[in-house]
Order: sequence, then C-alpha cells, then structure tokens
Amino acid sequence: MQFPSKLVEEAVNEIAKLPGIGKKSALRVALHLLKSDTQRTISLADSLLKLRTEVKFCKKCHNISDDDICGVCNSLKRDVSVVCIVEDTKDVMAIENTGQYFGLYHVLGGCISPVEGIGPAELNIESLLKRVAEGEIKEVILALSPTMEGDTTSFYLTKKLQAYSLKMTSIARGVPFGGELEYADEITLGRSILSRTAYEF
Amino acid sequence: MQFPSKLVEEAVNEIAKLPGIGKKSALRVALHLLKSDTQRTISLADSLLKLRTEVKFCKKCHNISDDDICGVCNSLKRDVSVVCIVEDTKDVMAIENTGQYFGLYHVLGGCISPVEGIGPAELNIESLLKRVAEGEIKEVILALSPTMEGDTTSFYLTKKLQAYSLKMTSIARGVPFGGELEYADEITLGRSILSRTAYEF
Repeated sequence: MQFPSKLVEEAVNEIAKLPGIGKKSALRVALHLLKSDTQRTISLADSLLKLRTEVKFCKKCHNISDDDICGVCNSLKRDVSVVCIVEDTKDVMAIENTGQYFGLYHVLGGCISPVEGIGPAELNIESLLKRVAEGEIKEVILALSPTMEGDTTSFYLTKKLQAYSLKMTSIARGVPFGGELEYADEITLGRSILSRTAYEF
Repeated sequence: MQFPSKLVEEAVNEIAKLPGIGKKSALRVALHLLKSDTQRTISLADSLLKLRTEVKFCKKCHNISDDDICGVCNSLKRDVSVVCIVEDTKDVMAIENTGQYFGLYHVLGGCISPVEGIGPAELNIESLLKRVAEGEIKEVILALSPTMEGDTTSFYLTKKLQAYSLKMTSIARGVPFGGELEYADEITLGRSILSRTAYEF
C-alpha cells in the first residue's frame, strides 16, 4: 500500500497492530479520524492513555478495577465462601452478565502454556493459594477454557488445592442450550453422554 | 455489558465509535492494550494525535499530504495536462496502486448528496474550476462511485466544465476482469454491451 503521507502510514501501522484490525480497516479508521473533529481524536487518545496508566488490578482477585479492591470483592452481597477461577477479565464479564453467580472470582491472567513460555509462576496462583489458606473459601469452581492449556492448568490447580479441605467443581460442559445434537462436535456430545445428569423428582 | 472499571468502559465506548469496530472488538482492543507495554499505548495515542493535528491537505488537489503541496502535484514526472477527479484519498491510493495513471488528481471530499446535506459548496469544486481556468489542463477524468450521488456529481461537473475546451472522460465501467458473465449484475452487463469497445487491428 502506498500512503499519501508518512503520518497516515505511521498511524495505520500503529492501528493495524491491534487485534482484529488489518491494514485496510486501519486506513479506514485513520481517514475517519481525519474527517471527524479534532476533539474526537483527542478524547480517543486520552481514554486510551488513561486506560493504560490508571487502571488498577484488584489486590484480591486480580480483576481489572478502578480501585485497589474491585467492586465484586468489596460487595457485601457476595458469597465469600465460593471462588470462581477464570483466565481473564473477559470471562468475569461473561459470567457476571449471566446474573447467575454470586460468589467471588480469581483471575489467573492466562493458562499454563509451555509453548508460550507461561509457567505457574507467571500466573496469579501464589495469591490464590494464600486466599484459600485463609480458610474462608469452601468451594473453588474451575472455569477455564476446554483447551489443552486450560485442562493442564485445571489439573495443576486441583493438585495444588488438594491439601485444603475444599469442594472443587468445574463448570458443566455439554451440548449448548438450543443447540441441535447433529451439529455438536463428537467430543462434546460424547462427554455429555458420559457426564449425563439425573432427573430430580 | 457490565464493565469491571469505568476507565475500561470509557475506552471501549470511544473505540467503538470508530468505523467497523463494535463493542466486543473494542473490549478486545482495550484488554489487549492493558496486557501490552504502556509504551505501546503511548505510541498509538501519539500517532493518532499527530495524524489528526499535523496532517495537511494539498493546496492544489486537496489530497492528504505531509506538506503544503503533495508528492503527486510536486512530482516532475507527472502529466500536468490530465486531472482525475475522485471522492477521497482512498480512491487516490487505489488508483496509485494500479501504477497505470501518471496524471494529477483532484479530491472532491465527497459527492453531492441532498439527503446528507452535502451541496456543491461543501465540496472542493470551486478550486477545481480555478485549476481548469488556468488553462494547463487538457483532460478531466471523472472517477466517482457509480452511485446516485456519484452520477449526480459527475453530471454537475460536466455541466460546470462544459464552458472550457476540455476532453472529459469517465473511467470505464463493465464486467470486471476475471469475472464470469453469469455473476455480473444486469445493469453492469447491460451497459457493458451498450458501451462495447471495438477491437483495434
């Protein structure tokens, strides 16, 4: 792509580094900003800088937060005896949006992945063990991705948490609600038969 | 969507105002920035601000430029007797990328659109007439979109330019190269028959 201006080229290159945005979309964004008010670009740049420099991470659960302790950990309405372990903030948001969970969270910040050089030390596992050791937590729910990395991490955590007298659970995996059986992949369908649940009368 | 932090929410709202980026993609971008180096966000914000505040528009052709006169207008290799009229910078880039055009450009900045309240006065038409009046231009190529607005603008310009002894042309419309006839829309195919070109022997 030939650019009419070095400034445009630089901006496009910077924008195109963002996830899910290619060069063509980046150019569209750049030309859009050039057409809009200068104030529009200023407030965009400002909000990005503020986001990066002022956002804190909750000292308890490591979720993104405006304060030292996040809203969930600070809430009096939450069940402090249950902790749901997730990979990152997106997962907390997804679970919060269901409106079905009233316990606390613990954000690992990723999964164990030898390929990417992420070991247990790179994740927020030490602080999880500390939280559990305090004795208030009675149940730990593992809600990690059903991938190799997620399973490895879940396995590692169950081993590490075995020493404490905890109820350990995993979120249910199976055929999605509204999903037709014939479109479910074989592994999901197979496992959903193995881990079938009994009707309660 | 419930956000864990107001700063995240503000950033997501700002990012989602950009064209082609929804709330989910905006959240992905925000979380990506939070995970990356602070320097990454600083250079992104910096390049956006520089883009918006320092980019100039060529005083001759109104294309985006780093200087008062753009590279194309300043080039000695260009044929100054031919001017191609386009809607915006993206079109200049597209034509430049073909490597088939060696004349100058004139960027209108849009098309006449009564619906959006864009009349001839909002476009760079006055300066085009001035350029033509200087007498150096022998041919004007209209390369506007084949839409209602583009056709209206082309019609307006041909009327305005009639007074000058100019060759006026339009870029060729027809079945795209590599396109199969059965997939061409009826209007394109119909017009490509009407404006058929003779083989030259």
